[in-house]
Amino acid sequence: MINKLCIIGVGLIGGSLACALKAQNACNTIVGYGRHPANLQRALELQVIDAYYTEIQPAIQGADMILVAVPLGAMASVFAQIKPHLAENAIVTDVGSAKQSVIEAAKSVFGADTPFLVPAHPIAGLEKSGVEAAIATLFTNRRVIITPLPENPPAVVETVRWMWQQTGAIVDTMTAQHHDEVLAATSHLPHILAYCLVDTLARMDEHTEIFQFAAGGFRDFTRIAASDPTMWHDICIANQPALTKVLARFQQELTQLSSWIEQQQGPELLAVFQRAKAERDQFTG
Amino acid sequence: MINKLCIIGVGLIGGSLACALKAQNACNTIVGYGRHPANLQRALELQVIDAYYTEIQPAIQGADMILVAVPLGAMASVFAQIKPHLAENAIVTDVGSAKQSVIEAAKSVFGADTPFLVPAHPIAGLEKSGVEAAIATLFTNRRVIITPLPENPPAVVETVRWMWQQTGAIVDTMTAQHHDEVLAATSHLPHILAYCLVDTLARMDEHTEIFQFAAGGFRDFTRIAASDPTMWHDICIANQPALTKVLARFQQELTQLSSWIEQQQGPELLAVFQRAKAERDQFTG
Repeated sequence: MINKLCIIGVGLIGGSLACALKAQNACNTIVGYGRHPANLQRALELQVIDAYYTEIQPAIQGADMILVAVPLGAMASVFAQIKPHLAENAIVTDVGSAKQSVIEAAKSVFGADTPFLVPAHPIAGLEKSGVEAAIATLFTNRRVIITPLPENPPAVVETVRWMWQQTGAIVDTMTAQHHDEVLAATSHLPHILAYCLVDTLARMDEHTEIFQFAAGGFRDFTRIAASDPTMWHDICIANQPALTKVLARFQQELTQLSSWIEQQQGPELLAVFQRAKAERDQFTG
Repeated sequence: MINKLCIIGVGLIGGSLACALKAQNACNTIVGYGRHPANLQRALELQVIDAYYTEIQPAIQGADMILVAVPLGAMASVFAQIKPHLAENAIVTDVGSAKQSVIEAAKSVFGADTPFLVPAHPIAGLEKSGVEAAIATLFTNRRVIITPLPENPPAVVETVRWMWQQTGAIVDTMTAQHHDEVLAATSHLPHILAYCLVDTLARMDEHTEIFQFAAGGFRDFTRIAASDPTMWHDICIANQPALTKVLARFQQELTQLSSWIEQQQGPELLAVFQRAKAERDQFTG
C-alpha cells in the first residue's frame, strides 16, 4: 500500500497509472504537480488525482512515492526541484524511455544524497497523449521494465514492482544499459527510420505527388513519424550511445541489401526477405 | 463494354477486378486461366469468374481484354504463352508493381508484333491474398496508375481507363519511368527498410528478448515485413534502377541523421523530426 503518491507531470502515462492504482485501492492519496494548472485542474475534475499543487514543496511533502513523468530533457531540473523536500525513505521512480541518462541526471543532482531511485519504463502505446486520454487499463498485459540500481534495498525495488503489477502489467527487471540497448533496437531505431523516410520523401521535388500515391503500407510504416518531435529529440540525445550502435548495424545491413539490389542478386535478397518474414510472423505483440 | 475478359492469375487483384466489373455489368463474359485448377474452381464456385480453362488457347480465344495478374518474374513467360493466340485488336493489360520491366518483357517477347499493351498498376492494400479475399469494392477510391505506350491508340488507353473507372478507382496516367520512381519512394523503399530492420534485429544475439519488448509502434512499422518474399524479390529485381536511386538518397540522409545523433546536435535533429511530422500529419491516405 502506498500512502501518498505524488505524480510530477500528469499526462497519459502518469494519469493512467493513477487511474489503475485507484481502481485497485493501492494508494491512500494521489496528488499531482506540473507546470500547467489548467491541466492539473482537468485531472482533478476527471478524478484522476485527489489534489494538485502548483508549488513543489506541498506536493511532495510526506509522499512515500514520487513518480517523475516528464520528458527526458526535464529530468535533471525536476530532480533539483524535489531534492530539498524529499521525505526520508521516499522512493523516486520515473517512466522515461531511456534509463542510463535518468540515472546520470539523478547522480549529478543528488550526488552522495541520492534517494531510493528505482527507474522504470512502461512500454505502452503513445498514439494519444494528455490526461484526457488516461485510462486504468493502459498497462494491462503491457511490459514494464524496472532497472534498479545496485544499491537499491530489495524491499524498495519490490514496492515499485508491486505498484506496476497493480496495473496488470508484466514487470521485468534488467540493467539500465541492457534496457537502453533493447529499446534502441525495438523502438528508437524504427522511429528514426520513419522520420528519415518521410523527410527524405518530403525533400524530393515531386513530394506532393509522391505522397498522393502512397497507400496503406506507407501509412502504417510512417505512423510513428507523427510522434512528438521534442520527445524523440530528447530520446536521441539521452540514448545516444545505444542508438548509434544499432544504427551502425542497420546501416551496414542496408548497404549490403542495396548492393544486392543493384547487382540484382536475387537469391540473397530472397533469403533476407524470407528470414525477416518468418521472424515477423512470430511476432504477435 | 468488354465482351470477353480473360484474367490470367485469378487472385486477390484479378478476382476483385472481376467482382467489380460484374457488379457494373461491364463485361459479357469473364474467364480465368492459371496454374492451379483448384484455385480456378474455387473462383468459379464463388462466381468471381464465369468459366475457366487450364489451356491457354481457349482461355484467350476471342478475348478483347486480357488481364495479366501474375508476379513480375512470370510476365515474360505469360506473354510468350499468349502470343500465338491473341485475337486481332485484343488489349493486353497487367497489374504489376513496376512498369518499365513489364514493357521490356513484352517487347522482348512480341518484338515488332507487340499488341495493344496498356500497363496498369492498382495501388490497393495487399494484406490478404488469394481469390477467397476478392471483393468488388477493393479499388473504390483507390488510385490506379496507367502507363500507356507512346504508340497506344487513344481509344485503347480509354478502354483500360474506363475498365478501372468501373471499379470506383481514381485513374491517373503517367510514364512508366515516372511511375517506377514514385512507387520506389512510397512503396518499395519502405518495404526494403521494414525487411532490413526485422532482419537486423533477428540477427542480434538477444533477438528473442528484443522482439519480446517490442510494442505497437514496432508492430505497425514492420507489418509490411510479413509481405510475400517472392513478390518483393521480383519487385526489387524489376525496379532496380529507381530503387537504387531512392535507396542512395535515403542512406545519405540516414548517415547525416546518425552523425547528428552521435554528435548530439539537438537543433538539427529537432528540425528533421518537426519537418517529417508536419508532412506526415498532412497525409491522410
